Amino acid sequence: MKKRLGPSDRLYPMPCPLVVGGTAGESDLLAVAWIGIAAGTPPSVSMALRDSRRTLELIRESGEFTVNIPPVSMAPEVDYCGITSGRTTDKWAATGLTPEPGAVVATPIVAECPYNMECRVTAMHDIGHYTLVVGEVVETHADEHVLDESGEKVDVGLLDPLVYIAGSREYRGLGPVVAQAFSVGRTVGPEVAE
Amino acid sequence: MKKRLGPSDRLYPMPCPLVVGGTAGESDLLAVAWIGIAAGTPPSVSMALRDSRRTLELIRESGEFTVNIPPVSMAPEVDYCGITSGRTTDKWAATGLTPEPGAVVATPIVAECPYNMECRVTAMHDIGHYTLVVGEVVETHADEHVLDESGEKVDVGLLDPLVYIAGSREYRGLGPVVAQAFSVGRTVGPEVAE
Repeated sequence: MKKRLGPSDRLYPMPCPLVVGGTAGESDLLAVAWIGIAAGTPPSVSMALRDSRRTLELIRESGEFTVNIPPVSMAPEVDYCGITSGRTTDKWAATGLTPEPGAVVATPIVAECPYNMECRVTAMHDIGHYTLVVGEVVETHADEHVLDESGEKVDVGLLDPLVYIAGSREYRGLGPVVAQAFSVGRTVGPEVAE
Repeated sequence: MKKRLGPSDRLYPMPCPLVVGGTAGESDLLAVAWIGIAAGTPPSVSMALRDSRRTLELIRESGEFTVNIPPVSMAPEVDYCGITSGRTTDKWAATGLTPEPGAVVATPIVAECPYNMECRVTAMHDIGHYTLVVGEVVETHADEHVLDESGEKVDVGLLDPLVYIAGSREYRGLGPVVAQAFSVGRTVGPEVAE
């Protein structure tokens, strides 16, 4: 039996990256669970930022941002960056996280996050009190210790990315592999194209 | 030491809902990992659909869609809906999943998915070969067996949502709770507003 819960902004689960706006001279970062891939060609992300956010102002000024995936062990620092404001707090100093120059954009990446995406804004859309920022991913970085044996691909077990659960406001880790995609479905029905 | 991996559409982790387009008369569904919350007021989602998708055509026609969160046990059916086309296959018949009338929109929800979001399209943006569909969430539903003791909120442990990992193409479940959000960060630094 289903129960109606009303309109809601809860999707399960969500990632929980640290998003940085600004430049080497001034930057700010915050935790953004409202983010997803927005296209594959070119690779793009979209994310919802509340209009009052200092990081959004910095992104508007420079037209660039970075998305940095934290490991589970970084939950306290991520949470701190979500519940404080860059208007009153230097979050880099408070958390001890390190801004590191990216390769393509002027916005720093977070050195302690083992996977980083450099992005250039391609569109912004106002939705209520939020701005949906769309950005093209122009470069990614991974720490060598989270790469698989090929040295070219992320091993998500080594990455150990933080996961966010809305509503119950939980941080979680990933559970075990339950099936391979583009594979397990072939047992279900007919007409699967090769 | 960080290694440059080039532009990429991999974000860790991703949800993996079934998205339905169409009406009671004709509908199609597919697996969409490229989805995220796009605003809080009004609650909105954004998702990237390849332009060739039959489900996208149906969403354009009716201006509505539903997002349905599958449990881990549904990985084979979700994968099947991702690797087949609604142009040649009746995915409902092939998977045995059941279209159930929603409460607000004409697009069916997936009865076997314990959490469902009904959405109305508010914007569409072309990005390369993809369309970023933005929709307002006008209603949500949850099976009573995934609600917590209040009967009003989802217990994500009971929901057991499927998680998608790009690159390694893995389906996973959620791991254990590692910290409480809006709480664990208070130990990190100064100036946390109450």
